[in-house]
Amino acid sequence: MKIDHIGIAVADIETAIAMYAGAFGLRPQRVEEVAGQGIRAHHLPVGGTRIELLEPLDGGSPIARFLARHGPGLHHIAFAVDDLEAMRARMVAAGLEPIGEPSAGADGKRIQFFHPRSTGGVLVEICSGGTD
Amino acid sequence: MKIDHIGIAVADIETAIAMYAGAFGLRPQRVEEVAGQGIRAHHLPVGGTRIELLEPLDGGSPIARFLARHGPGLHHIAFAVDDLEAMRARMVAAGLEPIGEPSAGADGKRIQFFHPRSTGGVLVEICSGGTD
Repeated sequence: MKIDHIGIAVADIETAIAMYAGAFGLRPQRVEEVAGQGIRAHHLPVGGTRIELLEPLDGGSPIARFLARHGPGLHHIAFAVDDLEAMRARMVAAGLEPIGEPSAGADGKRIQFFHPRSTGGVLVEICSGGTD
Repeated sequence: MKIDHIGIAVADIETAIAMYAGAFGLRPQRVEEVAGQGIRAHHLPVGGTRIELLEPLDGGSPIARFLARHGPGLHHIAFAVDDLEAMRARMVAAGLEPIGEPSAGADGKRIQFFHPRSTGGVLVEICSGGTD
């Protein structure tokens, strides 16, 4: 298992990309829209993982609600797993609460989120498959 | 550059360790106290990086204040850099605001935090040196 990415909610994507490039030398590798979640995701590789900058496509998206409630900042952590269904079952058995069923994420991945109230306040994602 | 660790503030360390072990199979590698920051840090290796569970040693520590204000959850992200002073200067030149001067962190590392108001809401740490 590894950390696939760290999701960061941003209010202004151009400012965020300029900051990560200027201060850290990180560059966006790819931009993807996940229409089902109402987000646009910018991936910045760093070491063996990635920062995923998340901007809302519309005011009703989860990221828009997060920004309205908390402001920009750390949003979630995603673990890459080999077998999404097996890991989901293990996590449920450990008492974690999945948010709905597995669905399609960016990169052609299958993803599953778990509710922060069951994980010590951390929005956790697991993901598998995809093109990278 | 890589992500050295992702810091997570926890209210109950035993519950958190049991959750990361049971749900993810992650195990604490090491526990360290950083008296200067009033914290105890539990390191859980995952892939090429680590989750750092942070518990307060006393009510006046920054983690205690974070827990009181936000509850448990994602706290900061730390980048491992080769040259702390050079990276600090680059980040300051890019407009990021350091919190004080470089200081001693866990693992014998030198660390520097930057204020979230200058980083898009993310408490950012850079660190160098240390034993791992």
